[in-house]
Amino acid sequence: MLERIRIVLIGTSHPGNIGGAARAMHNMGLADLALVAPRCEALTADTVSRASGADALVHDARSVETLEEAVADCTLVVGASARSRTLPWPMVTPRALGERLPEELSSSENRVALVFGREDSGLTNAELQRCHAHVHIPTNPDFSSLNLAAAVQVLAYECRLAWLEHGEPPQEASDAPTLASHEELEHYFTHLERALIAIGFHDPAQPRQLMARLRRFTLRARPERMELNILRGILSSTEKLAHPERPATGERAAHD
Amino acid sequence: MLERIRIVLIGTSHPGNIGGAARAMHNMGLADLALVAPRCEALTADTVSRASGADALVHDARSVETLEEAVADCTLVVGASARSRTLPWPMVTPRALGERLPEELSSSENRVALVFGREDSGLTNAELQRCHAHVHIPTNPDFSSLNLAAAVQVLAYECRLAWLEHGEPPQEASDAPTLASHEELEHYFTHLERALIAIGFHDPAQPRQLMARLRRFTLRARPERMELNILRGILSSTEKLAHPERPATGERAAHD
Repeated sequence: MLERIRIVLIGTSHPGNIGGAARAMHNMGLADLALVAPRCEALTADTVSRASGADALVHDARSVETLEEAVADCTLVVGASARSRTLPWPMVTPRALGERLPEELSSSENRVALVFGREDSGLTNAELQRCHAHVHIPTNPDFSSLNLAAAVQVLAYECRLAWLEHGEPPQEASDAPTLASHEELEHYFTHLERALIAIGFHDPAQPRQLMARLRRFTLRARPERMELNILRGILSSTEKLAHPERPATGERAAHD
Repeated sequence: MLERIRIVLIGTSHPGNIGGAARAMHNMGLADLALVAPRCEALTADTVSRASGADALVHDARSVETLEEAVADCTLVVGASARSRTLPWPMVTPRALGERLPEELSSSENRVALVFGREDSGLTNAELQRCHAHVHIPTNPDFSSLNLAAAVQVLAYECRLAWLEHGEPPQEASDAPTLASHEELEHYFTHLERALIAIGFHDPAQPRQLMARLRRFTLRARPERMELNILRGILSSTEKLAHPERPATGERAAHD
């Protein structure tokens, strides 16, 4: 189970924090690290010093440019967030997140990403809206900003406790539904926005949080792959109606 | 409740870890830090950098030479231990420790100390045997050594969760027994060893873990102050019998 939990660090500024996060992960039995557009060299003397023997995780880390690439194959994406933003999103506590993991990972195709933002500014609204849920580590309201590696430590600790308590999740029943991956969901949202523009319902110049609200609704429902295929079929038909002159979008969808 | 939880760091080598521990404490609402014989300067640029605004806790920290001084007034002393030692000691998980705190701290005279050892070698057996219980943070057996500040973070997090869940413990009933403090217990153990030598039962040159076993037994029972007074009365009478020529030890006990 633990091997299918990915820690994603976005825009990290301090190599020591990458090393500290790697150490916390390895201590708790996690191994899958992804770095999104780090704002520092990932592997420095500080990294190795703070990793204290866990720098192999940094060597093996995937380094990518966007959150989308880092979590494309994940079926649950949870963002660590200090506070609720403009548009409230489903929140879980670290403990509730841990307790949810064995079931989330009961299918061997499922993967969970825990996403951590920049030391100074956290995750952007756009990044937070790509998450199924947000997790908030309770802190002293007068001094609430946790060190990045300390935040990774707390969530990794909850992952390990859940694994120790429940053991490996049982292999899925053969009829378990396949959840949509992050990548499939993003293709759907792209398609949805295009269709809403086509029918004149949505003006990207005046977004009014429309897409954010549709994201929140859709992500809350945890769509299966099959369900997204149906929804995309509906969108294609809608687009065809709006622009009868254009080629069918079925082919375009395949390249999204 | 949180203000009566003390974090005790013994023989710390790296100022950055003191700063990181202070930050973790302040993030979780703890404020009482004691440093026992640090092996580095406590307040350096590294401390301040890692404390990230919580260096007031290091300024205010008590710096003492021995564990005894650091926890003299504490009614529960728990040592963070990587593994069980020669003589197995009562173990608690971090979560069970958190759940126990509201009751432990229901009397306003009670204080809890969480004791952390050296980065390279942890706590000595003598230090571990001065604790009522040991707490072990579950880790990957292949990579089990947590960073000091990360270990403080996990236990401080459990303290905060327990406090958030249970709120402030109710004020004690007026007939609640007063637990013996660490200092009173240590005076008792000194007296006990002296008496056992006097009656020829104990040879300090061949200790055979006798005192360690008696410590474990006594600490497990969580003696009240009143009970220790009775036990010390018994010891004084025993000593008098063994050495009828010496002055009564009742007066000596008062100076221990």
